[in-house]
Amino acid sequence: MTDSVSSVRIRVRYAETDQMGFAHHSNHVIWCEAARTHYMRERGVSYRELEQQGLLLAVTDLNIRYRSSARFDDVLKVICWVRDVQSRKVRFGYAIERESDATLIATAQTSLIALNSEHALARIPQSIRNHLVPVGDPVRL
Amino acid sequence: MTDSVSSVRIRVRYAETDQMGFAHHSNHVIWCEAARTHYMRERGVSYRELEQQGLLLAVTDLNIRYRSSARFDDVLKVICWVRDVQSRKVRFGYAIERESDATLIATAQTSLIALNSEHALARIPQSIRNHLVPVGDPVRL
Amino acid sequence: MTDSVSSVRIRVRYAETDQMGFAHHSNHVIWCEAARTHYMRERGVSYRELEQQGLLLAVTDLNIRYRSSARFDDVLKVICWVRDVQSRKVRFGYAIERESDATLIATAQTSLIALNSEHALARIPQSIRNHLVPVGDPVRL
Amino acid sequence: MTDSVSSVRIRVRYAETDQMGFAHHSNHVIWCEAARTHYMRERGVSYRELEQQGLLLAVTDLNIRYRSSARFDDVLKVICWVRDVQSRKVRFGYAIERESDATLIATAQTSLIALNSEHALARIPQSIRNHLVPVGDPVRL
Repeated sequence: MTDSVSSVRIRVRYAETDQMGFAHHSNHVIWCEAARTHYMRERGVSYRELEQQGLLLAVTDLNIRYRSSARFDDVLKVICWVRDVQSRKVRFGYAIERESDATLIATAQTSLIALNSEHALARIPQSIRNHLVPVGDPVRL
Repeated sequence: MTDSVSSVRIRVRYAETDQMGFAHHSNHVIWCEAARTHYMRERGVSYRELEQQGLLLAVTDLNIRYRSSARFDDVLKVICWVRDVQSRKVRFGYAIERESDATLIATAQTSLIALNSEHALARIPQSIRNHLVPVGDPVRL
Repeated sequence: MTDSVSSVRIRVRYAETDQMGFAHHSNHVIWCEAARTHYMRERGVSYRELEQQGLLLAVTDLNIRYRSSARFDDVLKVICWVRDVQSRKVRFGYAIERESDATLIATAQTSLIALNSEHALARIPQSIRNHLVPVGDPVRL
Repeated sequence: MTDSVSSVRIRVRYAETDQMGFAHHSNHVIWCEAARTHYMRERGVSYRELEQQGLLLAVTDLNIRYRSSARFDDVLKVICWVRDVQSRKVRFGYAIERESDATLIATAQTSLIALNSEHALARIPQSIRNHLVPVGDPVRL
């Protein structure tokens, strides 16, 4: 299903560059997070509201493969999808492309666990899980 | 009094540089904050504990003059002092120097107001104010 | 002239929040920079191309007044305009508003000087100055 | 050999926290980088000088496992070592511990490739490789 993949546009900020002339590799982590919250917002499960209701999602594992460099002012397309979901865990995949020439900048994966407001392990409510529909990877990670 | 001025050493991180080859100007804000929490920790009024006790200090005004550029791997000395303190407000001054050659990198000032844990305006307890002793500016801002 | 004021939409990222529950005050510096490069791009004087042609603009002074707090997921409207321009210097003004309720989050001002690729003081070419048209402040700073 | 493992102390900055009350997971990437440049500086192969001589090291792969959360003001010990080194590639391992109670906060690995100043693939000079001595993992990644 096409609507099980989400995509957000992000323009590389000057502050995100480093003296090598590229976007520094720590920003990709933040861009993936922006894509993940966008994915959830699009499906009506705003992460802002989840937190207000006492459900936190904390990253436990992160993998990024940097394939090409992003530069200042590049417009990036950050694609996000769910790889799999369990009662207390969800795994997201990401692909970051440059919009102008479709160059693949990076691929990534994060695992997140659900916590309650006391930071104890929690179940992801079924009403939320219904919106986290896994799909096959649209890009090889 | 010498002990009314505090100083913390900070090494410029690679991630803090930008493609101009300098430390990006947003980092100075963060370095000043690190110097301010260091100032308080040195005086036994840990900002971490203040927050746990329900006293927040929120920045309302910020001024920075950039005088020379900092570069990757430079060791900086970030000096911090109290300019003045009122019942609900405190104003800090800062000077950022390069340690190796005493070049003045920047001077700055921030005003902060006290908030309680509900984010309403609050008084700074006298026990805290006793540790926030204003001094004349050691460096012209 | 309306077209002498520029405006860019920025959504507050989770990574930009701090444990006080607000967007950390260092991000406003970065949002203003994004608004400034947007202002220039809109007028056909891309800062990316300026740098490639050997003209750098470095921030020498920064003032921010924080008036209300921004929160995760807030959509901000960052307005930017030129306050005045000289042969080697340009001063920008900024207003950051929350889009949903037009709350004024912050106002700011930055001064920038022109440098050549060797980081020596340089003149801003007239062809660039033509696009940096000062206007009266649309918001009181 | 003990001296093949390096360790740097980093205090968690307020700006590094997020509204969950923890250090945001993107900062670990930056702390690992600080540990890596510290590792090289300790061995007399300053990354700053390498870049000035035209040798860049760019991250191609990053893996982080987050095991416990770091909080504002925590003093962290970031341990770094070389896992293996080839003619154009080097792989570093990292362990981040809280100093006060030796809690393991995260483990990580990065792969880097060598580039010349034109960003083309390059060999790591033998004089540099001599200082990048692989050791067995002191902590399981």
